[in-house]
Amino acid sequence: MALTPARTMPGVLELLPLDQIAFQRMLDTIRRNYERFGFLPIETPVIEHSDVLLTKTGGETERQVYFVQSTGSLNAETKNGVPELALRFDLTVPLARYVAEHEHDLSFPFRRYQMQRVYRGERAQRGRFREFYQCDIDVIGKDSLSVRYDAEIPAVIHSVFRELNIGAFTIQLNNRKLMRGYFENLGVTDPEQQMLVLREVDKLDKRGPDYVRETLTGEGFGLSAEAAEKILAFVQVRSTSVDDAFVKLDALGNGSEVFEQGRAELKEVLGLIRDFGVPESYFALNLSIARGLDYYTGTVYETTLNDHPGIGSICSGGRYENLAGQYTKSHLPGVGISIGLTRLYWQLRDAGLISTAQSTVDVLVTQMDPSLLPTYLAVANDLRGAGIATEVVMESGKLGKQFKYADRAGIRFAIVIGEDEVAKDVVTVKDLRREDQFEVSRADLVKTLRVELAQAEIGR
Amino acid sequence: MALTPARTMPGVLELLPLDQIAFQRMLDTIRRNYERFGFLPIETPVIEHSDVLLTKTGGETERQVYFVQSTGSLNAETKNGVPELALRFDLTVPLARYVAEHEHDLSFPFRRYQMQRVYRGERAQRGRFREFYQCDIDVIGKDSLSVRYDAEIPAVIHSVFRELNIGAFTIQLNNRKLMRGYFENLGVTDPEQQMLVLREVDKLDKRGPDYVRETLTGEGFGLSAEAAEKILAFVQVRSTSVDDAFVKLDALGNGSEVFEQGRAELKEVLGLIRDFGVPESYFALNLSIARGLDYYTGTVYETTLNDHPGIGSICSGGRYENLAGQYTKSHLPGVGISIGLTRLYWQLRDAGLISTAQSTVDVLVTQMDPSLLPTYLAVANDLRGAGIATEVVMESGKLGKQFKYADRAGIRFAIVIGEDEVAKDVVTVKDLRREDQFEVSRADLVKTLRVELAQAEIGR
Repeated sequence: MALTPARTMPGVLELLPLDQIAFQRMLDTIRRNYERFGFLPIETPVIEHSDVLLTKTGGETERQVYFVQSTGSLNAETKNGVPELALRFDLTVPLARYVAEHEHDLSFPFRRYQMQRVYRGERAQRGRFREFYQCDIDVIGKDSLSVRYDAEIPAVIHSVFRELNIGAFTIQLNNRKLMRGYFENLGVTDPEQQMLVLREVDKLDKRGPDYVRETLTGEGFGLSAEAAEKILAFVQVRSTSVDDAFVKLDALGNGSEVFEQGRAELKEVLGLIRDFGVPESYFALNLSIARGLDYYTGTVYETTLNDHPGIGSICSGGRYENLAGQYTKSHLPGVGISIGLTRLYWQLRDAGLISTAQSTVDVLVTQMDPSLLPTYLAVANDLRGAGIATEVVMESGKLGKQFKYADRAGIRFAIVIGEDEVAKDVVTVKDLRREDQFEVSRADLVKTLRVELAQAEIGR
Repeated sequence: MALTPARTMPGVLELLPLDQIAFQRMLDTIRRNYERFGFLPIETPVIEHSDVLLTKTGGETERQVYFVQSTGSLNAETKNGVPELALRFDLTVPLARYVAEHEHDLSFPFRRYQMQRVYRGERAQRGRFREFYQCDIDVIGKDSLSVRYDAEIPAVIHSVFRELNIGAFTIQLNNRKLMRGYFENLGVTDPEQQMLVLREVDKLDKRGPDYVRETLTGEGFGLSAEAAEKILAFVQVRSTSVDDAFVKLDALGNGSEVFEQGRAELKEVLGLIRDFGVPESYFALNLSIARGLDYYTGTVYETTLNDHPGIGSICSGGRYENLAGQYTKSHLPGVGISIGLTRLYWQLRDAGLISTAQSTVDVLVTQMDPSLLPTYLAVANDLRGAGIATEVVMESGKLGKQFKYADRAGIRFAIVIGEDEVAKDVVTVKDLRREDQFEVSRADLVKTLRVELAQAEIGR
């Protein structure tokens, strides 16, 4: 029989076990922190009805959607040439559908976290993924939702990234109302025009101020040089502390109602983030943050690694006016963020910031003497009973080879029991990392290894 | 704008948050036990190349496959009318592809666990799922794999289901070689005919012995009455202990080489399961177990709940000769099992064996006095720092309504701080389950709640 080449499709990140362990530890850390702040888990199906997924999205997203058909209905189940089913391309649309569908069974404010994979038919390209994890939190209000929740989100972000331990980071905040009001003041009143200006402003980091200034005063926008200057000055505002942020916000002068509302919201949010116990070095005003998505209406967030600005935002989001207007007449404002973990993991690994993890397996019980297998199994049973992850070598072979296997597999401790050990009722523990070994009585084995493993955990 | 009805596709299990928590706890328990036995995690992409997925499968499975196309290539990317991409329908084919693809980076025996969703275009029907979790473990050898590993699998099953705490269960074992040898002895020598007899035998529980006897002696099979009787006697063998199993296996008389091999394997496996520390009430010989799948070649397993036989097997698997013959020339024998968790959870809930979980949120900090919000946030910060999952009410409102929210959301403890509490430097803790409340000094709050929560955990 001819062999089929074993391969994955392009644009997916498939990991070897030790890398998968490192990835899983990140997922666990994020989940633990989301839960610590009182967010509840949900999971939604990967496949949704196409009409449910595509109510709100434009053509760009639409072209990236993966459609799904079962064999029995390859040519049948289509509406206007569009198959009835599709894979989700984010977790926000499924959340909107979920909240609208289960509205009467949920308590509001509804605080959910969701950590699942999403699918986009991106062009194959280094660092672009067609399948990737999103780790989202959102707080959804019924009818209204206090702006105070906008301050809780950065507290969660801080807690997550501090524990992920990937270096110093800054959560950067802005407010779309402040931006909008400021632009209106400068004569840019048409919402669509504002959107276009925001999109240009979004390019500031990539293209530089000169490019943006030229575009804004050029044919397409036709802003005065003064207005362009003011916009450029505005988007370059950064704060170094909460008090500094207040001073800089006040220095923007008076503005329209929406402008003042944005300023008041930002001030309240910045002050509360401090009350949440987030150190002031971890968050800052950044009036250039606009977020590409059209639906943010108030606070917006981006998070960057101080020492790796090139990685870009590692966690973004904001406040939106109405989550599920396409499915329900209920007014459901919300605020949330998303961590694109697959891309982040890949970037961090690429930048040398995460290495391969130690194995989840703590101990390998070697097989020196096949006739002692029942003893080996009994020792393993004791260790597992104490929560120590233990693998037993079930086939006999040279001890050296067994140590090599443990070492290659990232297992730190190997246990050796031969006739001598049995006679003395002891166990030899080989520490493959320290290249050291010691004897311990069978009765003290569990206790001893627990201490060793706890120390290893601290040193990790 | 006309509203789009918010709905999921048929055949998926979407849960409300408290049910999701119960489900997640089951996933965590399974994962913890898989890791305790030294299995390593892998995850594979949901989407695979169609030719990779469909090398081995027959028409029946093929008709259940979901094919995938991105918008840009709706009519382009097909080969003979079959789209190039498809969703996995199990975790075994992706494992085979994974091992073949990464063979040189893996250590053998390769012990992997994988807990992900799979997709089958089943006809919509109560209890049939189109998207469901499989939780698999497999041990894969290079060239060979000792039959001793066949004894480790039931030890893992025992550990998992004991901790899932869903009632008494029995892991039932058989061996395909023993069956094959026994049938050959009775003149059923054609492998295809053996397969058909096995399939009939598989119906024993559902249709009863009379039906099976009639079929076996009827036109299609044409067995002698004696042969049919012997087969029926064979498949009704059950053991009550390891020693009883040995006696019953010996009582089967002498047989062919393959028969004797099967008997020797079963004896070794049964004895070793005992050495693994599995109590003998948890596993038994059951010579009717055949498993529908064609590729098992030695040991086969099924697991049933003693008090709920109607649920059927909750965990099945076995030994196979060669995992990845379609992708690589390497000979890769293995043994493994799968838990179909979505179906199991659904059945257990249906049978009243699992109830909705308590929330992952331990504490709700209520908002009695809006001006005290910074205090509430500081208290929450302390609790979270101690690993206690805490939600803060960010909007002011009646206390009674806040308690009601906590109660409905399954949160056990509510914290109340008003002017009185601030003056005395205490906190009022309301236990919503016990309908009780107590005061505790602010300094002792974390310690006190930790004790309460630890006790609640024990009582769960």
